[in-house]
Amino acid sequence: MTTTRGVAVLGSTGSIGTTALRVLARQRDRFHVAALTAFTNATLLRAQAHALAPTYVGLAQNGAGPYDAGWRTGAHCLVEAATRDDVDVVLNAVVGAAGLDATLAALERGKRVALANKETLVMGGHLVRAACIRGGGEVVPVDSEHSAVLQCLTGRPGAEVRRIILTASGGPFREWTRDELRFATLSDALQHPTWSMGRKITVDSATLANKALEVIEAHHLFDLAYDRIDVVVHPQSVVHSFVEFVDGSVLAQLGAPSMELPVLYALTHPERVPDTGVPPFDPREHSPLTFERVRFEDFPALQLGIEAGRAGGAAPAVFNAANEQAVAVFLAGHIGFHDIASAIGAALNALGVLPGDTRDALVAADAAARCFVMERFAC
Amino acid sequence: MTTTRGVAVLGSTGSIGTTALRVLARQRDRFHVAALTAFTNATLLRAQAHALAPTYVGLAQNGAGPYDAGWRTGAHCLVEAATRDDVDVVLNAVVGAAGLDATLAALERGKRVALANKETLVMGGHLVRAACIRGGGEVVPVDSEHSAVLQCLTGRPGAEVRRIILTASGGPFREWTRDELRFATLSDALQHPTWSMGRKITVDSATLANKALEVIEAHHLFDLAYDRIDVVVHPQSVVHSFVEFVDGSVLAQLGAPSMELPVLYALTHPERVPDTGVPPFDPREHSPLTFERVRFEDFPALQLGIEAGRAGGAAPAVFNAANEQAVAVFLAGHIGFHDIASAIGAALNALGVLPGDTRDALVAADAAARCFVMERFAC
Repeated sequence: MTTTRGVAVLGSTGSIGTTALRVLARQRDRFHVAALTAFTNATLLRAQAHALAPTYVGLAQNGAGPYDAGWRTGAHCLVEAATRDDVDVVLNAVVGAAGLDATLAALERGKRVALANKETLVMGGHLVRAACIRGGGEVVPVDSEHSAVLQCLTGRPGAEVRRIILTASGGPFREWTRDELRFATLSDALQHPTWSMGRKITVDSATLANKALEVIEAHHLFDLAYDRIDVVVHPQSVVHSFVEFVDGSVLAQLGAPSMELPVLYALTHPERVPDTGVPPFDPREHSPLTFERVRFEDFPALQLGIEAGRAGGAAPAVFNAANEQAVAVFLAGHIGFHDIASAIGAALNALGVLPGDTRDALVAADAAARCFVMERFAC
Repeated sequence: MTTTRGVAVLGSTGSIGTTALRVLARQRDRFHVAALTAFTNATLLRAQAHALAPTYVGLAQNGAGPYDAGWRTGAHCLVEAATRDDVDVVLNAVVGAAGLDATLAALERGKRVALANKETLVMGGHLVRAACIRGGGEVVPVDSEHSAVLQCLTGRPGAEVRRIILTASGGPFREWTRDELRFATLSDALQHPTWSMGRKITVDSATLANKALEVIEAHHLFDLAYDRIDVVVHPQSVVHSFVEFVDGSVLAQLGAPSMELPVLYALTHPERVPDTGVPPFDPREHSPLTFERVRFEDFPALQLGIEAGRAGGAAPAVFNAANEQAVAVFLAGHIGFHDIASAIGAALNALGVLPGDTRDALVAADAAARCFVMERFAC
């Protein structure tokens, strides 16, 4: 019998988490599920735990039960699961800022973190880099765009990269005029054209805040200056990103929109293993592939996010937290679509210069940004 | 002073050869031109030799002079240039079967062969592999399609490849109906939509014989069975080829049609060096990218070539020689466009089972196929 690698799936009941369990079910000769954590969905977590028999099960939200005997509960579940000796790879699919501590703890213990939690790198990119150096861990991205970049880069030194071009679907409002955008509703924003995702991320795709988060992540993942990270609108979401090298050559990774491959690749990188998660590629089925300019002027959240990334300190954390809170308020029906970017801009103006050099400073900035948005926009 | 690598440019006055000299002029801190050979163009060869001062200059066609003092002349020039001690890399841009011996000789001496001579691998793929093993040399493709595949593969083992998809522009007759094709003229065939190339290769693009040669080359270069090599029509010639891996992921290499990059990459592979030979890539300038089915039934040379590849032995050499000769007769105005494929088919029927296990057997098959086409089609 071959030894298989133990995987902790943090956020196992969410969109990425359930995808990951499908991938792992196909790859049982290479991986086993060692730990599962969920936020509140005890029913699905129980079904997963019964099917997979992990050695650790955690429900992160206190009071979200009922719990099974042997489950751990509370916010510390994430770090507990991520640092277990029988865990080799941590798939961090937690939504929001709660994912940061688990990532850092796993990296300090030398583990691979397959990172689907954007907030980890956006808030604490410099902390993540430091933790990798100290603990010997590594971050492998699960986002389709960053996975594409990593696949195009494989094995080549960073000095050979001239530029990366992240693709953006453009979201549901790609073809809306500026005037039409003023009347965009919650229902409009939730109609994503190519990706089926959670509600928060779908709204982020509509504002392009999502792409700002990805630009900041790419900056940290690939150690690239912001002026070497471009974005192009690609409505079909088939080209997942481009890498331009110093000799002018461009590589791209392509495929039908699906998270199966990015999840699998984050587990196996730099190796590739046979898998059936994505259908065979036929370029003709995806013809034509089109590319358009990003309308920065009509989707201000993107530029706000990139500027927050450039500013550094706590600004990216403020951007992220203000966006999360504003989207929550938008999803609750209290503010309009345009108010999301307004809330982010106001929060950055008020709080963007907070310090961000430690984990605690970042958590404080995160909380301050949430409070700011609630006070100004939720009443 | 850094030591630079010596390059022999075989076929320096042709389309690829002159491109190579432009590339080398930009990369003088890494490479120097150690040897130049041309077929008949003594005037241009003289200008190149004066500018670059190689230690070896050869004119391959006897009687093509006038020669300068110190030039070598005759067909043996190619092997002489390719095997010199001061040559590290042989850029083989010779047109036709004449390139085979120089490739084999260079590989036996452990050199890198940057191969733009399709015939080498098509005729003698198994001899090339054996020469690499014996001499420690390596073949790096200069064709844009194979360069694309190599760039997508870099560093990954062949077992991770499920399939490659070579792109084909479709040539000038892509949108011609079967009836229209019956009246295609020489002038029509020379109007290539996206690539500016020599006349012979341009006609090969029109018949798709070119793509058959590339399929056979890919089979040898990447050790892939023929059923793992597909072709798709891509009229913009921006995606230079795709690689599909066993996990379902697809990588592609892209860029404006230009041989500058494939030539450079063949010199530097697996490294990449800063260069300005291709303009910065903007996906929007190339939008839309479209993909279409190959019309095998209307361009029979492609299937004939692939079947010759599958058959092995001397069949690929017969395919190549019959095609070369038929194209020459077509360019001379003696036969029609459709007769090219007819000539190839007839030659394969008559001579496809000749033995092809040695260099001499292949040269004999090559000659027999040329004679066959001349006798049947040129009178």
